[in-house]
Amino acid sequence: MEEKTRVSRLFAERTGRMSSSIIRELCKLAVRGEVVSLAGGWPNSDAFPYAFTAKAIRKYMKEKKGEVLQYGTSDGVKELREWLAGWLKEKEGIETEPDGIMISAGAQNGMDLCCRVFVNEGEVCLVELPTYFGGVGSIRFYGGVPVGVKTDDEGVVVDEVERVVEKLAGEGKRVKLMYIQPNYHNPLGVTLSEKRREKLLEVARKFDFVLMEDNPYGDLCYDGMPSKPLKSMDRDGRVVYIKSFAKVFSPGIRLAAVVAHPEVVAKMVVARQFVDCCPPTLSQYLFLEFCRSGMLERHIVKLRKFYGKRMKKMIEHIEKYFPQGIKFTRPRGGFFVFVYLPDGLDADAILEESMKGNVAFVPGKQFFVDGSGSNTLRLSFSQAPEEKMEEAIRSIGEILAKKVK
Amino acid sequence: MEEKTRVSRLFAERTGRMSSSIIRELCKLAVRGEVVSLAGGWPNSDAFPYAFTAKAIRKYMKEKKGEVLQYGTSDGVKELREWLAGWLKEKEGIETEPDGIMISAGAQNGMDLCCRVFVNEGEVCLVELPTYFGGVGSIRFYGGVPVGVKTDDEGVVVDEVERVVEKLAGEGKRVKLMYIQPNYHNPLGVTLSEKRREKLLEVARKFDFVLMEDNPYGDLCYDGMPSKPLKSMDRDGRVVYIKSFAKVFSPGIRLAAVVAHPEVVAKMVVARQFVDCCPPTLSQYLFLEFCRSGMLERHIVKLRKFYGKRMKKMIEHIEKYFPQGIKFTRPRGGFFVFVYLPDGLDADAILEESMKGNVAFVPGKQFFVDGSGSNTLRLSFSQAPEEKMEEAIRSIGEILAKKVK
Repeated sequence: MEEKTRVSRLFAERTGRMSSSIIRELCKLAVRGEVVSLAGGWPNSDAFPYAFTAKAIRKYMKEKKGEVLQYGTSDGVKELREWLAGWLKEKEGIETEPDGIMISAGAQNGMDLCCRVFVNEGEVCLVELPTYFGGVGSIRFYGGVPVGVKTDDEGVVVDEVERVVEKLAGEGKRVKLMYIQPNYHNPLGVTLSEKRREKLLEVARKFDFVLMEDNPYGDLCYDGMPSKPLKSMDRDGRVVYIKSFAKVFSPGIRLAAVVAHPEVVAKMVVARQFVDCCPPTLSQYLFLEFCRSGMLERHIVKLRKFYGKRMKKMIEHIEKYFPQGIKFTRPRGGFFVFVYLPDGLDADAILEESMKGNVAFVPGKQFFVDGSGSNTLRLSFSQAPEEKMEEAIRSIGEILAKKVK
Repeated sequence: MEEKTRVSRLFAERTGRMSSSIIRELCKLAVRGEVVSLAGGWPNSDAFPYAFTAKAIRKYMKEKKGEVLQYGTSDGVKELREWLAGWLKEKEGIETEPDGIMISAGAQNGMDLCCRVFVNEGEVCLVELPTYFGGVGSIRFYGGVPVGVKTDDEGVVVDEVERVVEKLAGEGKRVKLMYIQPNYHNPLGVTLSEKRREKLLEVARKFDFVLMEDNPYGDLCYDGMPSKPLKSMDRDGRVVYIKSFAKVFSPGIRLAAVVAHPEVVAKMVVARQFVDCCPPTLSQYLFLEFCRSGMLERHIVKLRKFYGKRMKKMIEHIEKYFPQGIKFTRPRGGFFVFVYLPDGLDADAILEESMKGNVAFVPGKQFFVDGSGSNTLRLSFSQAPEEKMEEAIRSIGEILAKKVK
């Protein structure tokens, strides 16, 4: 044990504030064969484009296209950034040039680099209550102090954002950045209303903070069309827009696009030279072929049907099996339904019981930076086998019925 | 311009110490079609395993092996870590379990995570004079202060390491880490002698600092066998060994192995959850197939011939065309020959003239943290077309002849 002590003794001070996500631990548990998992936010492996991947790689390898296996530039493959600039304009109303886009190694890499460039030790960063822990982790790593703002069925309450910023200003604390998922929120499933989007940008302008907009689920809408991102209304370059391709292609290729003011992109590109040099080149060319061939568009249509059907089923099952009076969100896209239990009920205790019957979900508390939310839980409809979803929801419903009485 | 000012005004203080590498800028220049580049340290695209890559991906996709395109764990694919544990023991004498290995997204990602875990603001980190700027960049980002130690034909002068550490201790400064490339050094090409390896570990133990051992070129030996890494002699878990697979397979897959005390690996794994979640899964399974099928072994044999021939040629050309009395290293592996010009000659001026004839190389100054080395240059034999290498060396030789007189 002396050796163990020796090595850890040399750790940097910051290592002390590194802690593992409880959800990640839970997800490890949930992959046990017999467990029906409503826990993870992973896409469904049945929906990956296998045949396309084999064909595209074969093509590049047959041509001995060397750059596919070579180092790339830190901002990412130029043709991909060019294609994305056109597509983002057409689909999401975002005006950008290729030098306003950086390809990151997944959305988390984009959030890390964004916080690396903007967040100083001790600065306040607003987050939604609840929100995804990945964004919070990046903020915290750079010494940012996350402060939560409440949400409702229309997403974050923007009047509350203003009130919190003013209150903090009164205490001499300045807000540097807000982390937000306007579309098909994780874990809430809700979407920020159009009216609130305009207003949020106004507030950000007034108090001069950066908006870190995370949009992993934006293309997965099952009811109507997705709302335009905040980035499309960004007039002064304060929105850093992070668009993951994990859900519309594959998480295993580790790709996202970060769209920001070219000056911000330039700093992130310099920062990453000593972080990871460049995003995976093989993945980028594979995804470029996916985009150019028209497969991306067709695949999104397919995924909307695939996941939309599952969402509809989950909501039907909840309506059928959950006790009256239990509130839950009704998403129009994404992977999640968020459940509010009556006050006093503890989702951890429900999970413990639920796991006895091999049904897993995520207690919502993990998503609240203020320690609240013990009576909430997140249900994911992306991965559980369709035929087992009803049984799983029924089983949770029975546990809840006993507790609610 | 007001908008531009606005966004950059919000940058964190640390962005002030982010600056782009001059070599990277130079390499951009050197990819112009007409330029013969002896600049970059990239592998040669002609040597990538194209047919294998197509075949392996086709196999996985045909089997619809979902995990190949799915998220993976932050430490990397378990089967790959298991295979590597066996291979590292057999080939490099490193005793490790799979939980002492983390797969990183390239060596730079490993160095970033290592420094993230160990380096505190203001701590001294030793580096070789000269050394690779990637390791220095990671150290500097976390506030580490690189201090250079001189090298000779046997690598870093270990007596000098001891002297420098003692001198710093006298000034109340403690050394936290040393960044070192013992095998086929970049930019030197030299290899740390066996005797010095033992001694360096002793010094590290005596003064209790971490050794960050970078070994990107270790398998590319063209004369004799590669020396065993420091990690193989590590008795108290103070060596963090970073083994890139960019040169033996492809840089575009972004993979390296970090071998360290399991406690260190565990911290790096937690740290990366908010950096990049996990290394690319597609790449890892591709590389796993490469390893398991025996292709890695066969490919290394092929690469040794491929690059060894080029190294021999470059040295022949230098001997033939460079003026008498110009000193250069005689590597036994890797990608580089390092040239020492007579004092007073400036490699920047030589480069300027050389570029007029479309021949590029890297002035050595970039590799010296103490600002010295203006009379040195690095020549790479990995990428330039073989038939043009003679012409390029002759052209540099002529410029030198005029200057030396």
